[in-house]
Amino acid sequence: MALVERVLAGDRRALAQAITAIVEREPAGRPLLAALHPKAGRARIVGLTGAPGVGKSTLTAALTRHWRRAGLSVAIVAVDPTSPFSGGALLGDRIRMGELATDPGVFFRSLATRGAMGGLAAATGDVVTALDAAGFDRIIVETIGTGQAEVDVITMVHSCVVVLIPGMGDGVQAFKAGILEIADLFVINKADHEGAERLHEQMAAMLELAPKQEGYAVPILATVATTDEGIDSVADGLDAHWQHLLRSGKHHERDLLRARTQLQRLLQAQLLAPFEQGAGEAAFEAAVRDVAERRVDPHGAVAALVARTQERPPHEP
Amino acid sequence: MALVERVLAGDRRALAQAITAIVEREPAGRPLLAALHPKAGRARIVGLTGAPGVGKSTLTAALTRHWRRAGLSVAIVAVDPTSPFSGGALLGDRIRMGELATDPGVFFRSLATRGAMGGLAAATGDVVTALDAAGFDRIIVETIGTGQAEVDVITMVHSCVVVLIPGMGDGVQAFKAGILEIADLFVINKADHEGAERLHEQMAAMLELAPKQEGYAVPILATVATTDEGIDSVADGLDAHWQHLLRSGKHHERDLLRARTQLQRLLQAQLLAPFEQGAGEAAFEAAVRDVAERRVDPHGAVAALVARTQERPPHEP
Repeated sequence: MALVERVLAGDRRALAQAITAIVEREPAGRPLLAALHPKAGRARIVGLTGAPGVGKSTLTAALTRHWRRAGLSVAIVAVDPTSPFSGGALLGDRIRMGELATDPGVFFRSLATRGAMGGLAAATGDVVTALDAAGFDRIIVETIGTGQAEVDVITMVHSCVVVLIPGMGDGVQAFKAGILEIADLFVINKADHEGAERLHEQMAAMLELAPKQEGYAVPILATVATTDEGIDSVADGLDAHWQHLLRSGKHHERDLLRARTQLQRLLQAQLLAPFEQGAGEAAFEAAVRDVAERRVDPHGAVAALVARTQERPPHEP
Repeated sequence: MALVERVLAGDRRALAQAITAIVEREPAGRPLLAALHPKAGRARIVGLTGAPGVGKSTLTAALTRHWRRAGLSVAIVAVDPTSPFSGGALLGDRIRMGELATDPGVFFRSLATRGAMGGLAAATGDVVTALDAAGFDRIIVETIGTGQAEVDVITMVHSCVVVLIPGMGDGVQAFKAGILEIADLFVINKADHEGAERLHEQMAAMLELAPKQEGYAVPILATVATTDEGIDSVADGLDAHWQHLLRSGKHHERDLLRARTQLQRLLQAQLLAPFEQGAGEAAFEAAVRDVAERRVDPHGAVAALVARTQERPPHEP
């Protein structure tokens, strides 16, 4: 049976193999994605982001157990733009999954910058498509917060959960406009720690001032993920947001946003390719030296590079 | 007198005006940069990064005061990829500068995603060029850490300072390979807080395991930026790193890296431009809908978009 049929039939080994082909941009990846793309579009995709140390992994595991108890299959993509390690078989990944590691209704994959040729965000979008086509009911995209790369990844989900904890320095600094705008749910994890109530008040005050989503109030939920406390309310909150998306037509908007983000990333990778090999690369490196030694300014150098690739071969009359 | 001459003569208002033209990609910006680029290359450029709440602003102000006492002029670029606000005249910027706000030997500019057309990192590189050409002895690029955007900005400096504080969750999570590799100096700020010694030990142990820079040992320095404690040692550490760069020839390598990063960003912006206006934009938006509605997969859509722009107009025989 061809790889794509095995993936669609729920074969986990085939899925892992397909994802590797996709992420590493192997030749087999392109036709695979073309075949899987029309079969995707059924899963609910949840993004989970927050600074290092807020307990995202614990929360992901708790949410996964909650959905498993409800009979739903769950796939997890852990995206780490700061890590050089990619792959699904790392010891640390198996440890953090605990008893879930042996559950056939759960699939885990980690993605990192260096393992993802052509951009981490583009690779994440493709992996989500494969997981979606493979029939998972829920897909969690877990990512480390604050940078543009993370914001891009988050535009690929239906619902975005931003995780905070009490006592992490200056709350105003940490949760500026960018984060306020992408959050569909706020979760205050480690809510049994000192300062949780104050953080809740601060966040509520900030949400008051932020632009509102029409017909939807962003909730601030409290959890202690290590003891599953509050996990039900997060799952309920995600259901409520999903209902809002369907009711308001925002569901379609999010799909468009996901497609747009993915196309932008891929277009970028494709357009830059001529400057990353052969004569194009040599011309690029020569321009780098000219700019560094201040013979040409960067904008002039770029104009010359682009003109070079657009030159037509001489025409015979 | 033309704007460029006024900038080179040290006119601060002209400089602010030039930077706005550059960042907003006004038509006047291009010739300005072409004229300023050959005059730059004299300043020492220091990057300062770390998570929100570690005291980067306080440390920047303390370092600036230190250099001012030594008779050096200082320009500061505060880069915030999470903020929608850009510009040099914000109330918050003036407040954080305190007494430095009225010092003619100090120049401050903040940059944010939405104010920087064509990419925040590219704009940062151009602003640094303008400040360098304007004759500042030291330029501090202050940025919020962890994401790819920040790592990109940091490749534009000579020396990179990574700021940590005790008690910020899981140290191993927070300071992975990406951060270890870009740091030339580690600063443990708020070193009078509990856990500072333990953090120092952890960082020292991690540096033991990290790939070494030949002929240079990355120092771990302790500061209490609010009382200027340890600031001398940071300035000394930066001098030592600068000497190392000159001695080892790494100075030239960093200049090449800065040029390469800047060219990549600009090239990207230029190549994507045909898809951001007119018929190209319409074709792009149609592709977005096709992908969202699963008629075409993203990779197929991108191939078609690129083929479209490369079509030649019909040729008259």
